[in-house]
Amino acid sequence: MQKDQYMLQAQYAISILEAKAKIIDEQMSMKYNREIMRSVSGRVKTPESIYAKLMRKGLEPNLKTACEKLNDLIGVRIVCLFLDDVYKIAEILTEQKDIELVRKKDYISKPKKNGYMSLHLIVDIPIYFDQNKSTKRVEIQIRTIAMDFWSVLDYQLLYKKDVSAAEKVGKELKKYSEEIADLDRKMQKLRNKIEKI
Amino acid sequence: MQKDQYMLQAQYAISILEAKAKIIDEQMSMKYNREIMRSVSGRVKTPESIYAKLMRKGLEPNLKTACEKLNDLIGVRIVCLFLDDVYKIAEILTEQKDIELVRKKDYISKPKKNGYMSLHLIVDIPIYFDQNKSTKRVEIQIRTIAMDFWSVLDYQLLYKKDVSAAEKVGKELKKYSEEIADLDRKMQKLRNKIEKI
Amino acid sequence: MQKDQYMLQAQYAISILEAKAKIIDEQMSMKYNREIMRSVSGRVKTPESIYAKLMRKGLEPNLKTACEKLNDLIGVRIVCLFLDDVYKIAEILTEQKDIELVRKKDYISKPKKNGYMSLHLIVDIPIYFDQNKSTKRVEIQIRTIAMDFWSVLDYQLLYKKDVSAAEKVGKELKKYSEEIADLDRKMQKLRNKIEKI
Amino acid sequence: MQKDQYMLQAQYAISILEAKAKIIDEQMSMKYNREIMRSVSGRVKTPESIYAKLMRKGLEPNLKTACEKLNDLIGVRIVCLFLDDVYKIAEILTEQKDIELVRKKDYISKPKKNGYMSLHLIVDIPIYFDQNKSTKRVEIQIRTIAMDFWSVLDYQLLYKKDVSAAEKVGKELKKYSEEIADLDRKMQKLRNKIEKI
Repeated sequence: MQKDQYMLQAQYAISILEAKAKIIDEQMSMKYNREIMRSVSGRVKTPESIYAKLMRKGLEPNLKTACEKLNDLIGVRIVCLFLDDVYKIAEILTEQKDIELVRKKDYISKPKKNGYMSLHLIVDIPIYFDQNKSTKRVEIQIRTIAMDFWSVLDYQLLYKKDVSAAEKVGKELKKYSEEIADLDRKMQKLRNKIEKI
Repeated sequence: MQKDQYMLQAQYAISILEAKAKIIDEQMSMKYNREIMRSVSGRVKTPESIYAKLMRKGLEPNLKTACEKLNDLIGVRIVCLFLDDVYKIAEILTEQKDIELVRKKDYISKPKKNGYMSLHLIVDIPIYFDQNKSTKRVEIQIRTIAMDFWSVLDYQLLYKKDVSAAEKVGKELKKYSEEIADLDRKMQKLRNKIEKI
Repeated sequence: MQKDQYMLQAQYAISILEAKAKIIDEQMSMKYNREIMRSVSGRVKTPESIYAKLMRKGLEPNLKTACEKLNDLIGVRIVCLFLDDVYKIAEILTEQKDIELVRKKDYISKPKKNGYMSLHLIVDIPIYFDQNKSTKRVEIQIRTIAMDFWSVLDYQLLYKKDVSAAEKVGKELKKYSEEIADLDRKMQKLRNKIEKI
Repeated sequence: MQKDQYMLQAQYAISILEAKAKIIDEQMSMKYNREIMRSVSGRVKTPESIYAKLMRKGLEPNLKTACEKLNDLIGVRIVCLFLDDVYKIAEILTEQKDIELVRKKDYISKPKKNGYMSLHLIVDIPIYFDQNKSTKRVEIQIRTIAMDFWSVLDYQLLYKKDVSAAEKVGKELKKYSEEIADLDRKMQKLRNKIEKI
């Protein structure tokens, strides 16, 4: 498979999932009469980033290996306002018959060591392209705006070279991750109270 | 089926076809190294318009009848620059395995009586929505920008009440339709010459 | 002045301020090498909402009075990631010579009674329209995404009819406003630390 | 002036003119009750293209000379449906007090030698940026969709190296330019007739 063809198919897979997310957003907004999603965005991993990841894992650095071994070549991120919506969105997405759930990683109930929180769905989605049908693997990240805000600092920290300084700040950042999780829970509870008034 | 559900499914069908059109546009742009599509747009027929059409045809004015009997409830329009691209786009679209071609109406080789030109593809496309799979019928209109320009005047004429005055102008408009067809053919031939230089 | 003309001029004023915000966003992103704004949006107060506000204030309910007495007929909201950026954006905006600052209300250093936080700039901006120059008053709200998240619940509470239940929940919401302010300060400090690594 | 600063100011000038065009489009659409503009787009000349043009003119290849001597560093293109709208748009734009018309070149009444048609307005527009006010020169091209279609082929021809072959095709293209002008006039006359029914 050519690189150009791969990019077009990846973009098409992203378009399909963005269309699905948009419809779920409208459906839930009508049902619950409030804002659900803040943003939906997609990205294809750059060749440089793929290369680096394959080398780090000791794998052959080519597109074929990448497609077989990496789950996050194609990524879609859904940012919503409230914690419970994260799970509702995931449920509606995965019950659709053309989406096959490969794995669910709940980094909200069990955050990563550094404090990172998000619900990850690794899914396979059929792509009809030219005369062929193929399957594309996509990593869908669903998170609240509070978690998304946190991840901005986490990302800034990622590329620092002074490891010991970064580790120290990282500990503080992890603590805030817990505060953010706490705030998300409280805001959701309050929203439930408001809806009952 | 509820009206809201119908609208969401219709919008989803439009999103899928817009995504397909966008990818075909990029594919062809890369292959031929020139601009292919000028615009892609979708619309769902309004309830008023559905009602009027059903009444005109002597059919029961309800959504069930509309879905069964009308082919143009959901419409997607692709406007491209050159005549030959109309057919290439149609070919790539219809060879995709998830699109079932119900009927092709070539109003370019054989324009409507009033001079209207466009290639119409009536297609069925599977929609995965909630836990169900259903099929949506969509009318895809593919035309050049020259044909699209012509149709602006044709549309203005449609709602005139002075029938005899409208008919007179309609004849003149039909003549221009032929001039436009002629211009499209000449511009395409010239493009072919330029590409060979 | 006609209502249509008013709407067009209001939309034009919003476009100018959105263009300014977009350029400031790019300028600051380049300078600080990080994401600055998350969203910029504008809205014109609806006739119903204008009418209600004028009646509440015991004023004549017409467009002339509204333009003279209300500062928030035209609103632009800028949501950014970090606390210090709120003030930097405000500074760059107000030092532009075509923007006249009428009043600054700092509801961040001194939140409203209910806990609402935002920096409000009431500005006058010249509008060149047809052959005339006029001045439009705009309320620019600048806030962090955390403050913006808080305001979603505050807004839901606004239209509840059970006053005593709403008041009780309102107290809790106010408390979270302080937690959010606290979190914003901590996240900014940590960002500063990260930038120094 | 730095290159980055120049780009931001140029983009800001484009945003202002796009906002003006959008408002004029709405104003005219309401007044005449039909579609006016098909697209509005802006572009800043690339450094490569600036360099080539300065060298061709025997001028010093630097940004200062470019800003002083070239009128088309910043360009905005407005494509509308009908011929008379080209002139109406130009009139409304140039009567605005913050736009200073430097020169008008009517390549519609008097096409370029190769057949190129468009109305060009060279204008100066004040830009309030940071604490300074400056003036940016912009070339606004206003044309019909038919003229715009023609220019696609003209542009393809521009980079051909076989000069004699290109010249031959160029003559044919020029002839079509006249046919397109003729068609534009006839379509406008017919639109006038339809509006009177």
